[in-house]
Amino acid sequence: MTQDALVVFTPSGRRGRFPLGTPVLQAARALGVDIDSVCGGRGICGRCQVVLTEGEFAKHGVNSCASNLSARSDNEQTWEKTHGAMSPGRRLSCSTTVLGDVVIDVPADSQVHRQIVRKRAEVRDIELDPAVRLYYVEVQQPDMHVPSSDLRRLKEALDFDWRLTNLQADIRVVQELQSALRRGEWKVTVAVVDSERIIAVWPGLREKVYGMAVDVGSTTIAAHLCDLQTGEVVASAGKMNPQIRFGEDLMSRVSYVMMKPGGDGEMTREVRAALNGLAAELAEEAGIAVVDILEATFVGNPIMHHLLFGINPVELGGAPFALATDEAVTGLWATEIDLHIHPNARIYALPCIAGHVGADTAGAILSETPYLTDAMTLIVDIGTNAEIVLGNRARLLAASSPTGPAFEGAQISCGQRAAPGAIERVRIDPVTLEPRFRVIGSELWSDEAGFADATAATGITGICGSGIVEIIAEMYLAGIIDQDGVIDGALAERNARIRPNGRTFGYTLYETDERTLQITQNDVRAIQLAKAALYAGVRLLMDKLGIAQVERISLAGAFGSHIDVKYAMILGLIPDCPLEHVAAVGNSAGTGARIALLNRGRREEIETIVRRVDKIETAVEPSFQQYFVDAMAIPHKTDPFPNLRAVVPLPESKAGERVAQGGRSRRGRRERPLVEGGETSSPSTTTLPA
Amino acid sequence: MTQDALVVFTPSGRRGRFPLGTPVLQAARALGVDIDSVCGGRGICGRCQVVLTEGEFAKHGVNSCASNLSARSDNEQTWEKTHGAMSPGRRLSCSTTVLGDVVIDVPADSQVHRQIVRKRAEVRDIELDPAVRLYYVEVQQPDMHVPSSDLRRLKEALDFDWRLTNLQADIRVVQELQSALRRGEWKVTVAVVDSERIIAVWPGLREKVYGMAVDVGSTTIAAHLCDLQTGEVVASAGKMNPQIRFGEDLMSRVSYVMMKPGGDGEMTREVRAALNGLAAELAEEAGIAVVDILEATFVGNPIMHHLLFGINPVELGGAPFALATDEAVTGLWATEIDLHIHPNARIYALPCIAGHVGADTAGAILSETPYLTDAMTLIVDIGTNAEIVLGNRARLLAASSPTGPAFEGAQISCGQRAAPGAIERVRIDPVTLEPRFRVIGSELWSDEAGFADATAATGITGICGSGIVEIIAEMYLAGIIDQDGVIDGALAERNARIRPNGRTFGYTLYETDERTLQITQNDVRAIQLAKAALYAGVRLLMDKLGIAQVERISLAGAFGSHIDVKYAMILGLIPDCPLEHVAAVGNSAGTGARIALLNRGRREEIETIVRRVDKIETAVEPSFQQYFVDAMAIPHKTDPFPNLRAVVPLPESKAGERVAQGGRSRRGRRERPLVEGGETSSPSTTTLPA
Repeated sequence: MTQDALVVFTPSGRRGRFPLGTPVLQAARALGVDIDSVCGGRGICGRCQVVLTEGEFAKHGVNSCASNLSARSDNEQTWEKTHGAMSPGRRLSCSTTVLGDVVIDVPADSQVHRQIVRKRAEVRDIELDPAVRLYYVEVQQPDMHVPSSDLRRLKEALDFDWRLTNLQADIRVVQELQSALRRGEWKVTVAVVDSERIIAVWPGLREKVYGMAVDVGSTTIAAHLCDLQTGEVVASAGKMNPQIRFGEDLMSRVSYVMMKPGGDGEMTREVRAALNGLAAELAEEAGIAVVDILEATFVGNPIMHHLLFGINPVELGGAPFALATDEAVTGLWATEIDLHIHPNARIYALPCIAGHVGADTAGAILSETPYLTDAMTLIVDIGTNAEIVLGNRARLLAASSPTGPAFEGAQISCGQRAAPGAIERVRIDPVTLEPRFRVIGSELWSDEAGFADATAATGITGICGSGIVEIIAEMYLAGIIDQDGVIDGALAERNARIRPNGRTFGYTLYETDERTLQITQNDVRAIQLAKAALYAGVRLLMDKLGIAQVERISLAGAFGSHIDVKYAMILGLIPDCPLEHVAAVGNSAGTGARIALLNRGRREEIETIVRRVDKIETAVEPSFQQYFVDAMAIPHKTDPFPNLRAVVPLPESKAGERVAQGGRSRRGRRERPLVEGGETSSPSTTTLPA
Repeated sequence: MTQDALVVFTPSGRRGRFPLGTPVLQAARALGVDIDSVCGGRGICGRCQVVLTEGEFAKHGVNSCASNLSARSDNEQTWEKTHGAMSPGRRLSCSTTVLGDVVIDVPADSQVHRQIVRKRAEVRDIELDPAVRLYYVEVQQPDMHVPSSDLRRLKEALDFDWRLTNLQADIRVVQELQSALRRGEWKVTVAVVDSERIIAVWPGLREKVYGMAVDVGSTTIAAHLCDLQTGEVVASAGKMNPQIRFGEDLMSRVSYVMMKPGGDGEMTREVRAALNGLAAELAEEAGIAVVDILEATFVGNPIMHHLLFGINPVELGGAPFALATDEAVTGLWATEIDLHIHPNARIYALPCIAGHVGADTAGAILSETPYLTDAMTLIVDIGTNAEIVLGNRARLLAASSPTGPAFEGAQISCGQRAAPGAIERVRIDPVTLEPRFRVIGSELWSDEAGFADATAATGITGICGSGIVEIIAEMYLAGIIDQDGVIDGALAERNARIRPNGRTFGYTLYETDERTLQITQNDVRAIQLAKAALYAGVRLLMDKLGIAQVERISLAGAFGSHIDVKYAMILGLIPDCPLEHVAAVGNSAGTGARIALLNRGRREEIETIVRRVDKIETAVEPSFQQYFVDAMAIPHKTDPFPNLRAVVPLPESKAGERVAQGGRSRRGRRERPLVEGGETSSPSTTTLPA
């Protein structure tokens, strides 16, 4: 009879021989196999579950059968009584011993460093390695003859059981420690941050700890609550940034501060109050208390970032746009930003990059990882401003372009935020010029049976960002607007949807007795201006890198992941690129905040990377104006878009013939107000056809 | 003509050759000579003053003359205009260049690590090396084309000018930084703690930074304000601990917490409020603002310590007397204990040692440094409790003895705190039994001419601690009380000052129409009990170390440094020891706090040392009771006190004869109530002579 047994772990493939009677968890630890445990192998947390893989494994020389593990233990039965039965075949590895050769599978949910699988193939999965972790310990009771403080004995237990050495403790932990130890009868769970500092203590076993990842946008604040033990998003919430009442866009908020001393403090209080509301909402949705949230990570543009942290943003309102700090904000207590989660919860904000390029851009970079690829990658993050990142592992450039809120539905006559009832998809028949569309809340197209019923509840209320991109691109494809964006009034004869609107024309998408949704010439101009600012910024960065082509595009931001990237390219919102390498990536800044929440190594990674990002101030580059003017055309005045043309036949450009006309061309007349005054329309630029 | 010159620095003796034109400060830096500077050699802080030593120095081969230094510089003239003339011969070393061989003296006040000379020869001087230091820098202005945050450029300047690398910054510094830089026109002074973290920033040059060292006693809180650049105490203040209203002694305060939930919070608020009052008082006395105080260090017994830091002290009220923490409290912000000094000021508290042995004892150990000597050293720190430390570099023991407040003047019929009008010195003529005395506020003895006038203003109001020790010791030397402390009523025939007082006798020290200051039998008993508790504790520690004799004694605490240690020994308050090795050291705990404030290395030193201290719970030691009883006698029932007898002839012991009487001796009868009930007097123990 052998005295030891072979234990093979999958999926790691690690193997070793152990004396009979060795607990499976202990064998795993000896082999460095990743199995989770909060209670330290006491059979009470239930995190160390494994599955025996039964069968004859010739390659391992193992006949793995159930009798080679010990019978169900008291621990396991007790655990199932309080927590419910484990899935079939599962065992608590700490309370199951090896009696013969076995193959043991460690399911993903039992691994400490489990992978959070992201849906898109081109981005990295997130390995779970949060800064805040829980540890359960049983602490020695005090002895008058060997005086040693409760904290010292707690730390000795954490050292002995968990190899956590030289821990520090927050003063509030010291304040609560004695009561927690006695209420827990010397059994407590502690939360430790960065394997360095005890930040919370609870009597007895505590199995869950949560963190929140927040994207503080100028318009919207979006937050996710994550279970830090599983990485799972357990609740999500969003709300308007209440600072909006001080100004719609960033510059008007800075102006408010400049005009009103103390205005920064007001806005700081407002955003913090909103965050407290969000935290409470998230906690309620997840059925936890706000004090169960032990960490919060933040991204935001520089002005949102500075206001959140109580830094007057006035320097960001004018050249040279100096940030107060471009480092990650780290190690703050929640109390220091008046956030009512656990008072010792830690705050982490990704670093800002430059006066116009914030922690939101850092988040997008962390999410999209252009620094890990050779492919020349463009990240465009569209909010009230558009942030642009371009580069690859060799070099990264970043810039910000003031697109304005057109892509969010503002400045568009029938625009609205993405919400049920908003038109998000549009097709226009190039022959009849008749449209069909889909609204948020229904999968049906407007020409399909049942559409009216399906949309009765929400109504059809406006056009959201992705709908605006599609309808203008479709109007271009159908010839309703030309490359310069002028609505062709001559078409009014073919379809009554094209009709005069003052001195210009409009295209009516939807009309009832109560409501008319029309795309006006002004709407087209607003989108042209926004997309031209963005495209010009991209072209500048391409120049800086000396490239004529990008290889991968991530389109992030306000559109969410709903935008059809093909239409974005037809419109010339993004440069030409093989369409299969263009992804709508949703809120990549927020994803960056979530990555930083779930993996502390990624924090260091992005902190290092942002230092290597070269910041470009597009507004002061001499070529910006010309690039801007050229990018007003759809998709572009000069850039050929070969990849796009290979997939979508584009109307013939009329630019050549017009330039050939010479003299005071329409384009020539239009340039001036667009560039200097930023006007979207004037009688002199878009006249009614004679 | 030579191209370089020899520069010799005194007192370090360092020397080197430098090109003509080298600034003296630069030469000093190159040689590692310790010269202070806040402004980094810009000629504006004035801290780097040196003196040319003129003359022919044969041993150096130098003819040091004034013409070998550059003429008075513009910097020096400008500095003197704003700061007043430097002492004769002084130069700013940063603004003076070498033109030939010179001998340069660096005065003590120009050294960074200057020594704070302590008055007692047997203790170490304090080398100035505070945790918080000031640095002046000129920061590069922001450049839109090389975007870099204000914080980053500040840190680059600190790195370049001061070799301070990887600094962190408090969030409140980041909040104030941009405004400070612009108000200071890119010149700022920062305070850095532990060469690690920027904790404050001011526009322009700031030359002073302060710290406070606080001893939080049960009865009195004493605080010193120190200039952290010179080590000088610039203001001192003390006030009653307002917690007294919750209980005179420690145990009654713990009882209050036990009986009243939230009582700990009340007491925490009280002590913090008192500290704020003290800080304001210190600042006013020194003519500074409270926000100029950048650090505070604390000592206190365990209960005072825990209440200060918001830790419920209830566990310290009963066995096993578990401390919440026995580590130094470090790195806290002043705001975390509601202390209204600079919000980012750092808080440091020395470590507690055991449930009854606190940070005050750690402070006394740090001040008296028994761990640096071979001499077997006893530290006795007398407050409401007495802390005892015994040992040397090989081993240290610590204990606490409940002496009660007798030595502070409480429980004594005519006792009072040490204040003007209190009797502090007493002599009794052994023939006439007539006393003479001195009171605080006058140098005259009561039998000297002018005494009445000199004390008219204060009156003669009571007897303070040192006076009580002296009068009882003198009563013993004069035969008014015997070794057992019984006042000899038979002497009433010789001097009317000895007169009946109920069933016992008293000795009248001072009498007017308004007031009689009398030492009663009860007073003698109270002192006997207190000193016996202390002595018994000391004897226990001597037993633990296996020694029969101590070699050095530091007598610290409530007496201040006023006590005459000879009388303390006659009374048997401390064990026998050569008198020249006994020192009254005043508030050594508070000195420990001051040392920790001025030298960060000493913090680490004491944190290490206290871990090696063995804690003895005297109350549970079986031999304590017998030691206590033996120590009731004056100076002691059995210990011979040979060193004392060599200096002071002591009355013949009558113990032998009484023990020889056999049967139910007076001493035998007295033992019981003293030990069991702690009564200070009862008819059965001190009877009127028949």
